[in-house]
Amino acid sequence: MSTRVRRHPERGAYDRQTVDAILDDGFLCHVGFVLDGQPYVIPMLHARAGDVLYLHGSPASRLVQALASGARVCATVTHLDGIVLAKSVFNHSVNYRSAVVLGSARIVEGDEKLAALEAIVNHVEPGRWEVARQPNDKELRTTEVIALPLDECSAKIRTGPPTESPHDDDLDVPSGVVQLRWIRE
Amino acid sequence: MSTRVRRHPERGAYDRQTVDAILDDGFLCHVGFVLDGQPYVIPMLHARAGDVLYLHGSPASRLVQALASGARVCATVTHLDGIVLAKSVFNHSVNYRSAVVLGSARIVEGDEKLAALEAIVNHVEPGRWEVARQPNDKELRTTEVIALPLDECSAKIRTGPPTESPHDDDLDVPSGVVQLRWIRE
Repeated sequence: MSTRVRRHPERGAYDRQTVDAILDDGFLCHVGFVLDGQPYVIPMLHARAGDVLYLHGSPASRLVQALASGARVCATVTHLDGIVLAKSVFNHSVNYRSAVVLGSARIVEGDEKLAALEAIVNHVEPGRWEVARQPNDKELRTTEVIALPLDECSAKIRTGPPTESPHDDDLDVPSGVVQLRWIRE
Repeated sequence: MSTRVRRHPERGAYDRQTVDAILDDGFLCHVGFVLDGQPYVIPMLHARAGDVLYLHGSPASRLVQALASGARVCATVTHLDGIVLAKSVFNHSVNYRSAVVLGSARIVEGDEKLAALEAIVNHVEPGRWEVARQPNDKELRTTEVIALPLDECSAKIRTGPPTESPHDDDLDVPSGVVQLRWIRE
């Protein structure tokens, strides 16, 4: 590891409550894994249940292939909350909440697999599992569920107004935060 | 590479026009890189200019450290467009557009660095570069710009209504697509 000082160490957080809130506030994550030295990052849907992050995908996906060989993975969930407009371009930023989970994942089977799929479906659309037809054996075989423990995780958050440089105080440049959010139509 | 059949090969696209449109329709990407065998995925802001994807970050970031040693990276941009509610939980899906860029990145210097920062700032907030104070030398030194060529890239897209299983035709379960989109407030 480098001993260089990180630019914004104050944005880091390592408590599970902060990480969990970020994971639970969305259902899109980006999962990184390595095959033959090349990193891949693919979008997946997720749900957290207790101390585990569940993901699901096709058994034919590269990720599932990589996991079968015990690969390390990284799952990252990011929420963009705002565009931070400062008086100087250097101080421009975004407000965001990001959680990163590192670890070795495992393939989930049996009752845990069904419970994980229920968690994912109901995380994306609350109550939907109870409304739609349940999966049959053939459907379950063609869906792979992956569990990543929340042992190694961290969060990074930026909130609030722009941080201006003191010598920009007198500049007549409009600044502030443009809020961003998702809506369902 | 595996010879297994991918579950939805029809969703893949490899033409640059499709990839460019996905990259240009957002400014958040997730960048994957490897340090000591561990993949990391971090959120970054990006802008495309011609055949290059520009990213920017702190010189102290792990990504910049990894790049200094010539590491391969993967930059992925995903837009979630809708939640696809089918009659069976198995046929649930999301509508999305995702672009993946693989390659070796390089650190950008000089005039190209300034042009890349302008592209990123104006991609996030059109016209902002011209309004705010320009960066001075010290500020430029503490921002690193990274260029990733668009030589190896692909897109994956799902659109449209749910694909139902024929034997679910008579099921009385409401189905359809819930549209998702970003708004600026």
